[in-house]
Amino acid sequence: MPEHLPQVLECGIRDVVFGAGVRVVQPVNLYGCRIEDSCFIGPFVEIQKDVRIGARTRVQSHSFICELVSIGDDCFIGHGVMFINDTFATGGVSGGRKDLWRCTSVGNRVSIGSNATILPVEICDDAIIGAGAVVTRPITVPGRYAGNPARMLR
Amino acid sequence: MPEHLPQVLECGIRDVVFGAGVRVVQPVNLYGCRIEDSCFIGPFVEIQKDVRIGARTRVQSHSFICELVSIGDDCFIGHGVMFINDTFATGGVSGGRKDLWRCTSVGNRVSIGSNATILPVEICDDAIIGAGAVVTRPITVPGRYAGNPARMLR
Amino acid sequence: MPEHLPQVLECGIRDVVFGAGVRVVQPVNLYGCRIEDSCFIGPFVEIQKDVRIGARTRVQSHSFICELVSIGDDCFIGHGVMFINDTFATGGVSGGRKDLWRCTSVGNRVSIGSNATILPVEICDDAIIGAGAVVTRPITVPGRYAGNPARMLR
Repeated sequence: MPEHLPQVLECGIRDVVFGAGVRVVQPVNLYGCRIEDSCFIGPFVEIQKDVRIGARTRVQSHSFICELVSIGDDCFIGHGVMFINDTFATGGVSGGRKDLWRCTSVGNRVSIGSNATILPVEICDDAIIGAGAVVTRPITVPGRYAGNPARMLR
Repeated sequence: MPEHLPQVLECGIRDVVFGAGVRVVQPVNLYGCRIEDSCFIGPFVEIQKDVRIGARTRVQSHSFICELVSIGDDCFIGHGVMFINDTFATGGVSGGRKDLWRCTSVGNRVSIGSNATILPVEICDDAIIGAGAVVTRPITVPGRYAGNPARMLR
Repeated sequence: MPEHLPQVLECGIRDVVFGAGVRVVQPVNLYGCRIEDSCFIGPFVEIQKDVRIGARTRVQSHSFICELVSIGDDCFIGHGVMFINDTFATGGVSGGRKDLWRCTSVGNRVSIGSNATILPVEICDDAIIGAGAVVTRPITVPGRYAGNPARMLR
């Protein structure tokens, strides 16, 4: 294989609409998204285009929020939380076929524990997702959910 | 929503007490913690205030160690390991109410595999936590633990 | 404990062989590895020495690929995916004893979901690993695998 130089891009903050009183800890990779009043975004976070983060929501370090995700107000997104829009529905990664991607909608006052994984579903207001949970189905009833796959506790 | 500029902070190393022979790979976010002799701290790591990391312990890339965690000597903290102090005990994130947070104490010679999630518990000396495990209960007997929730193997 | 200054290293790109048309988003920590034509490497990624990443493979943000891993062509490695070479086989971390580490071989056209954890196994061509899965055994039959430990679905 002949050797080449890679194209090296830098992460940063591009084309983001911020509300009042937002705090961000660099390095982050935020682009094309909307981050409303009084949010906190920790270091080593990536948020992709068209994402909306509601007012007073905290996104902690190491989390990744992909295109087609909307998060409500007063939420807590723990550390290392990963959102997903491509479920490999057709037998592998969808690549450029965004028509195969699916949406995630997180309500208000939702708490998501660290290292949780969120497949593209709706999560209702006031839900609590435990640390390390893998959410594979819509959550329509407030309560505590944990495990892989995540189930309601008690 | 009127547009504003965010307050942009930079991660770094602030108010950390280091022992002899510590190596750190930037970027990291380390503040107010104590890192003892001959530790290694990999890139993309965050360690919060009042944490103690014992001598010769290695904290690998992408890990997050929160306030109220103490780690002993000669431990291995894998990549992407997340510690937790807020169990959402009162029905959601505790926010500023630190009286609701709980402690984690990790003994000596403990190995924690990558992508493990550690709820606030005690982990005894010489325990082995498998990669991807979610530790939800105290570990009082040395041995190998894995799964979500983590259980002793065999 | 007397206070010392740590040795502070910087992550970056060192001794990497790149094919044509590779794109990398900094910050990353890539060293001693081989990244073939048209790969994409997202931010906050670490790839260690002697790793091979095949042509057109995408390694998304926050992933960690350790020594002794080889990944084929046209793969998708999601966000926060962690590979492992040390299974703590002798009762704890192997430290410098690399003779105790084991290899991971990922075939071609493999899709690995975000936050998955991959123990040192072989994964065959065309396998699909779900988000949050913990792969503990070799995958020899193409299909969809999920859970902790990962099992074939249906």
